[in-house]
Amino acid sequence: MAVYTHVEPDDLAALVARYDIGTVVSCKGIAEGVENSNFLLETTGGRFILTLYEKRVSEGDLPFFVDLLNHLASQNCPVPAMIRDRSGVAIQQVSGRAACVIQFLPGISLTQPTPNQCEAAGAALGAMHRALEDYTGARENSMGHMHWRAVAEATGDLDVVLPGLQSTVDQELAYLDAHWPNDLPAHVIHADLFPDNVLMLGDRVTGLIDFYFAASDFRAYDLVITHASWAFSADGKHCDPARAEALMRGYAREIALSDAEVAALPLLARGASLRFLLTRAHDWVHTPADALVTRKDPSPFLARLQRYSAPDAASLFAVG
Amino acid sequence: MAVYTHVEPDDLAALVARYDIGTVVSCKGIAEGVENSNFLLETTGGRFILTLYEKRVSEGDLPFFVDLLNHLASQNCPVPAMIRDRSGVAIQQVSGRAACVIQFLPGISLTQPTPNQCEAAGAALGAMHRALEDYTGARENSMGHMHWRAVAEATGDLDVVLPGLQSTVDQELAYLDAHWPNDLPAHVIHADLFPDNVLMLGDRVTGLIDFYFAASDFRAYDLVITHASWAFSADGKHCDPARAEALMRGYAREIALSDAEVAALPLLARGASLRFLLTRAHDWVHTPADALVTRKDPSPFLARLQRYSAPDAASLFAVG
Repeated sequence: MAVYTHVEPDDLAALVARYDIGTVVSCKGIAEGVENSNFLLETTGGRFILTLYEKRVSEGDLPFFVDLLNHLASQNCPVPAMIRDRSGVAIQQVSGRAACVIQFLPGISLTQPTPNQCEAAGAALGAMHRALEDYTGARENSMGHMHWRAVAEATGDLDVVLPGLQSTVDQELAYLDAHWPNDLPAHVIHADLFPDNVLMLGDRVTGLIDFYFAASDFRAYDLVITHASWAFSADGKHCDPARAEALMRGYAREIALSDAEVAALPLLARGASLRFLLTRAHDWVHTPADALVTRKDPSPFLARLQRYSAPDAASLFAVG
Repeated sequence: MAVYTHVEPDDLAALVARYDIGTVVSCKGIAEGVENSNFLLETTGGRFILTLYEKRVSEGDLPFFVDLLNHLASQNCPVPAMIRDRSGVAIQQVSGRAACVIQFLPGISLTQPTPNQCEAAGAALGAMHRALEDYTGARENSMGHMHWRAVAEATGDLDVVLPGLQSTVDQELAYLDAHWPNDLPAHVIHADLFPDNVLMLGDRVTGLIDFYFAASDFRAYDLVITHASWAFSADGKHCDPARAEALMRGYAREIALSDAEVAALPLLARGASLRFLLTRAHDWVHTPADALVTRKDPSPFLARLQRYSAPDAASLFAVG
């Protein structure tokens, strides 16, 4: 939650004047998105999200995100399209930052999804994967399997974060390097579809948001990231069978996983758990204690890693 | 900027169902108000601010604020009225907090007001004072003159904050105690009308917000708080004559200050500067470095105190 960059009213008026969206009525910083400064912008023409991109989103990646979101929106996926100005330009400059005016979507971010909401999220993820099967865009997954060892090394002594974490991570990295698949179906994936990145009204998905980790990777890896973030207790120690089964059932309505994908799910889920464990540990060590960003506890993803490593882990992915 | 308390979708739906405002469409935490958790709530019936009151606003004061804001709204002052539910109740309970659904006002918070905007703000303050002359509500000003010594003592050694500050504050407290007036026109005042508490569209005031310091005090003291926060450079060292004169001119359109009030303005402005110097120093010392709230630098109000103490300080209040 943060607004890092202030926008002067005159600069805002000049930005809005580039678009066919009327004049400014209101603009309030919103407490969403740890990576960027976000404003809820109301004009006489409607409501929009104004995002100013801070350092963690590379300006060079923005054309990819614009193209991806506009592709998905054109395929009727409920994603926030990037609005183009009268000249066809989507990426602007505001207050020294790259900025986009983005479609406003209704709905509320979830924190404690019900099984019905998990099923809807699984179906929305599957439908998005279908819309991405023939999408030709691509982006290196800088948070993907090939990069985890570097994240671990950049964090320093992991035992400072949690006692015993260093040897656990070393063993896990060795195991995953030895067993990580290389021939599963892959395309651009969301790669961060936690409940707070899904907007819902009741049991209906009204928005899939925050695509700034979207990159090319296995679609089944996207599914296990969603599984890890939707089906577990907050401490990561308990997988709720009702939520897990509902999520898998919803996804299966849209995508028929291959036998190789099904067999790989526990391994991929170990990888997903390690990815969030490592990035949270890295941010825990490197985020100044007085930063505006709230640091996230890494330990619930260590608990998930342990659960996905158990002999019966395949049962967590049963289609209910 | 903060959202301290999360609201579950089911609790939000139950709250909204008490009102004649339709059903929830969207609810986003907004980065406004350091005292409370604020959400921009959209329903099928319109837009509202949902405020959850955190510890710094006493629940016992809420009926005063509801009455004050609804009085001002009825007098056509552009303030956010507290919406009552079907049973006439304005103060609700949500997520363990007292909460109000509040009218949404258009406009953008200012940071660098122009002279024209200062004039509009002065006139809006004056019009609000006229609407409060016969208002019978009252509230002890816990941030008023009688309480500054206690704030200083609760802060501890002021030299920790700024070298030499302790003796400056001791001398100023003694001077103000000896000279503070007791018979100027008084009623409920806003007491915190900084530019970020005024919404504008262009040069038009569309909202006066954040009344949670409103209390009974001299109306001229409210004017000097506004003067100190609108007419100075960010470092507090320079008073801009164009902005100061415009503010005084706007106010004078609505209120004719008495000779005693005009004579007291420099003294009252020293008091206002000391009040924000002391409360910022207190928060600087007592806010944990990792808190979500950004601590505000006290020193610009020491600079204002010095400027208002100069022999020519009366000239800063000339009506342009």
